Amino acid sequence: VRALFREQLDALRGLLVVMAASATSAIRWASDALMEGDPAAAQRVLVTAAELDRERQQVEETIRDMLVRQQPVASDLRLALAGLHVAGDIERMGALAGHIAKIMLLRHPVGAIPAAVEDIMRRMGEIAEELGWKVARALEVGDQDAGEQLDRDDDEMDALHRNLFEALFGDWPFGAQAAVDVALVGRFYERYADHAVNAGRQVAYLVTGEPPTR
Amino acid sequence: VRALFREQLDALRGLLVVMAASATSAIRWASDALMEGDPAAAQRVLVTAAELDRERQQVEETIRDMLVRQQPVASDLRLALAGLHVAGDIERMGALAGHIAKIMLLRHPVGAIPAAVEDIMRRMGEIAEELGWKVARALEVGDQDAGEQLDRDDDEMDALHRNLFEALFGDWPFGAQAAVDVALVGRFYERYADHAVNAGRQVAYLVTGEPPTR
Repeated sequence: VRALFREQLDALRGLLVVMAASATSAIRWASDALMEGDPAAAQRVLVTAAELDRERQQVEETIRDMLVRQQPVASDLRLALAGLHVAGDIERMGALAGHIAKIMLLRHPVGAIPAAVEDIMRRMGEIAEELGWKVARALEVGDQDAGEQLDRDDDEMDALHRNLFEALFGDWPFGAQAAVDVALVGRFYERYADHAVNAGRQVAYLVTGEPPTR
Repeated sequence: VRALFREQLDALRGLLVVMAASATSAIRWASDALMEGDPAAAQRVLVTAAELDRERQQVEETIRDMLVRQQPVASDLRLALAGLHVAGDIERMGALAGHIAKIMLLRHPVGAIPAAVEDIMRRMGEIAEELGWKVARALEVGDQDAGEQLDRDDDEMDALHRNLFEALFGDWPFGAQAAVDVALVGRFYERYADHAVNAGRQVAYLVTGEPPTR
């Protein structure tokens, strides 16, 4: 029974890899939509976010079934619950990309991001995309050091988020609407990164069986 | 074994009631801090949010132990997983109250909320607090209709959130910083309400054993 449980868990890891790749495409499309004014890209984000929500539910149901049919030992159970956490984080990453896409669509054909913060925003988008890929790759190859690497990238994201708020709270000539859009988009990128870091920590756990230290 | 599992689950429900009451106090203190300029109230929010994070971890560990030691039937397992979801939602509610408190502390002794949107904000705070109490009460008395009631309250919250953004995106003379603060606080209240609704749906599930319909 135990070997079967591990086998099914491994199959589930395959689905999580696909989900992480989707969440990564979603944030890239969201950044494209925002920066290049591409509403079709924004629509793709919304479709992908809805798919990720369904896939998370599918992972939850599969894990419930596995837990009920087989009586896992403690370590296997912990792995299954780590899988639930990762699926939840990836679903949130997709939802956050969707929030960015919706702000773009609300403003289109006017751009939501003033030129003064374009560079910061573009870099936030790049880091978010990198974090997404690292989660997907860590899930695929079973990288137990993913958590630490993701933490470093997240430090850069936090620094950019602070820079963004300095711009917003300094001499900001673009009006309240642009300020709110920029603040929310910045927050969505930063939350995306946080969920990627959480997912990365749980991946290390899925691989090593050692609980995350924080 | 089955009776023991249900008994332990019921004991856990007691902890969830306490957690929901704490998350409710936290949002009331956050609103007090914001509206009356009371930094001590803001500090209490941060302490409570940290406690809620620990309590969520405690619930997770207890449920893991229960699942490993006893081999629950499918329906009990689903209830246990619903308990995990509720604990997660309540922890997020505390964290969101904490985000509001932090914005107040950043601006103190200057107020973060311009008088023009004070009424909307105050009402958002009241609804959030009501939603928190309804979750706590539903957990305590086992109210299976909590989900529907919470949905109605959440509709009012969504309407207020829209009003707030109309004010922000209309003729807004208070500058970018106040706009960003107001937009973020509004979003935190709205997310608090969403998590309360999610928790309420899972409570109905905990009580009836019927999965939430959405």
